[in-house]
Amino acid sequence: MNNFIYYSPTEFVFGKNTEHELGVLIKKYQGTNILVHYGQGSAIRSGLLEKILKILNDSSIKYFTLGGVKPNPVDELVYEGIELCRKENIDFILAVGGGSVIDSAKAIGAGVNYQGDFWDLFDKKGAIEEALPIGTILTIPAAGSEGSGNAVITKINGMYKRGIGSPWLKPKFSILNPENCYTLTTYQMACGIADMMAHIIERYFTNTPQVAVTDRISEGVLKTIIEQGQKVIEDRRDYQAWANLMWSGTLAHNGICGTGREEDWSSHALEHELSALYDVPHGAGLAVVIPAWMRYVVDVSPDRFLMFAQNVMEVNGAGKTKAEIITTGIDELESFFRSISLPTNFRELGADMADIDILVAKLNINSGGLIGRFKKLDMTDARKIYLMSCK
Amino acid sequence: MNNFIYYSPTEFVFGKNTEHELGVLIKKYQGTNILVHYGQGSAIRSGLLEKILKILNDSSIKYFTLGGVKPNPVDELVYEGIELCRKENIDFILAVGGGSVIDSAKAIGAGVNYQGDFWDLFDKKGAIEEALPIGTILTIPAAGSEGSGNAVITKINGMYKRGIGSPWLKPKFSILNPENCYTLTTYQMACGIADMMAHIIERYFTNTPQVAVTDRISEGVLKTIIEQGQKVIEDRRDYQAWANLMWSGTLAHNGICGTGREEDWSSHALEHELSALYDVPHGAGLAVVIPAWMRYVVDVSPDRFLMFAQNVMEVNGAGKTKAEIITTGIDELESFFRSISLPTNFRELGADMADIDILVAKLNINSGGLIGRFKKLDMTDARKIYLMSCK
Repeated sequence: MNNFIYYSPTEFVFGKNTEHELGVLIKKYQGTNILVHYGQGSAIRSGLLEKILKILNDSSIKYFTLGGVKPNPVDELVYEGIELCRKENIDFILAVGGGSVIDSAKAIGAGVNYQGDFWDLFDKKGAIEEALPIGTILTIPAAGSEGSGNAVITKINGMYKRGIGSPWLKPKFSILNPENCYTLTTYQMACGIADMMAHIIERYFTNTPQVAVTDRISEGVLKTIIEQGQKVIEDRRDYQAWANLMWSGTLAHNGICGTGREEDWSSHALEHELSALYDVPHGAGLAVVIPAWMRYVVDVSPDRFLMFAQNVMEVNGAGKTKAEIITTGIDELESFFRSISLPTNFRELGADMADIDILVAKLNINSGGLIGRFKKLDMTDARKIYLMSCK
Repeated sequence: MNNFIYYSPTEFVFGKNTEHELGVLIKKYQGTNILVHYGQGSAIRSGLLEKILKILNDSSIKYFTLGGVKPNPVDELVYEGIELCRKENIDFILAVGGGSVIDSAKAIGAGVNYQGDFWDLFDKKGAIEEALPIGTILTIPAAGSEGSGNAVITKINGMYKRGIGSPWLKPKFSILNPENCYTLTTYQMACGIADMMAHIIERYFTNTPQVAVTDRISEGVLKTIIEQGQKVIEDRRDYQAWANLMWSGTLAHNGICGTGREEDWSSHALEHELSALYDVPHGAGLAVVIPAWMRYVVDVSPDRFLMFAQNVMEVNGAGKTKAEIITTGIDELESFFRSISLPTNFRELGADMADIDILVAKLNINSGGLIGRFKKLDMTDARKIYLMSCK
């Protein structure tokens, strides 16, 4: 177990009707003049936004609104948000949506008091030394942004996808009402499930020895996601399944599944180039990349893959060799992705094998030539994994 | 899954040499003139206190010291601490020790700016509306106080043990260095192990349905405590086992194992009377009470006890009936306690069957006649459980 800092100060307010705590929560965290940030209209269509604005009115909290965040959120709207916050002296940002909206809100919050171009923070030319406080009302359990200090934004000019991380970006509160997930499409749900699982898988495959407690927690959350994920896909109004899945999605990325160990994150890096180039959902790209990545790196630690097969995928080992159990574990993860209608290869994703040179070239620029920790991958490795993703 | 709030804002700084972060952490949380609170000398004997005071000097942080906290900390020293803090304008309390020291520090912190007698807060005659910020350097993984908003204090006049809970009492930071556990005695370790396990067991046995994610996390942490607990008892300088055990002890009581469900806490109530009357360690009393409580309430939810037997105690069910698996699970928990030299009945604990009337009478006063949620126990039930603990 390595030294670590675990700091997850977000107040998670979970369950039915928890939106009604909004006024109290915003005031508790000193919001008086707020920006309500949202996406492309689903929060309008579901009636959630209207409900929220009414609560704000009833609580005498002044607000401005800025909608239009797209999946894979872009810098353009962040600039607009920063300008609006400066002009109107906004002191708190409320993100209503999924990870894209929350990430966009974080980028705005970080940029408002930064003197230069906010993109400097993503280019590591500037450091985050403060940020406007944000709160979230989550509608898509997937990205884990409601409990993390991370944000990913795409720069339209060049389609570069970059991430930032800082304790300043951790939301003050997140309201998690499973009922707000009922309007998601099956594909959105499935992409969310893959995204959550990826957040744990990127932490679970590590070379740090003796991290038993973090392993057991990770396995428990992963098993829950698989079990409850299947249930919400079968019945999109299964409150209890959503409750377990939604909370799992937060725990997958608030740091608890990573304590004390080196994390990997190469599947995320490989996927970011796919979603930047093809504008496909992050979770769909992950479902394609992860099984290929696993097969490529399995020899780094067969024991860890065996543990994954047995403790997460619950492979029945009777009559199987160790190698067969390991292979079956990866195959069953892929089958699970397929069973919830996710793509598991380039073709199904809408990606083109002929573009691999472009993907690798961009990855090379974005990563500085190496990705991952479980196995440090150079661009030759990356090319092979993209190729294996085409099968 | 019930509605819940999960709020664990403590910054956990974990690992070797993390004491050296102390100056930075205290300043981050606005401490300038602090009280260093500690126990009966183990932190002096180990050299830890000297190291800490040197770091404070080197960081130009002014401090006062107040030692002498006993296991089952008492109100007397809390009054003394409150007076000292008021007189010296203390703005931050650093607790160096185990749960008793941290609880004493929390009570002082809550009392300093409270206008009346601080005991009002424990008697529910007053409410905690603010508290001095506290930080901890944990030396005994057990109580989980380093990550909780709870404190338990014994009033010497009458030997009443009472608890308080408030978000105000959650430490700003907790420094967890597994090496600080090397000087614990085997009995201290064993009591700590039982205490940690109890914090999860009190949450695991619930009637709230469909709490899969919280169940899986709880099972994972419990299994880790059993596995790593045995290792530290075998080798008190096994850093990795301590690291896993210490972090498990924090997670057992920072709320993560309770999200979304009704908790029980009757074993704690039953035990508090034992440790108040006989001044025995809390963990030792719990090892006596819990198996008896389990056997008394098992019929409330055999399925949950089956899950405990299979997923935590890993009972091999081959050739056993469901009832046998359940019984074996409880028996194996008791055997585990015995294997680490904990008492498992009144006699071994140093308690006297003849005192059961006194215990029940005090419990009745302290609890208002009913304890627990998994099965609501009246004083007749409590008497039976104490009797079953005598075997």
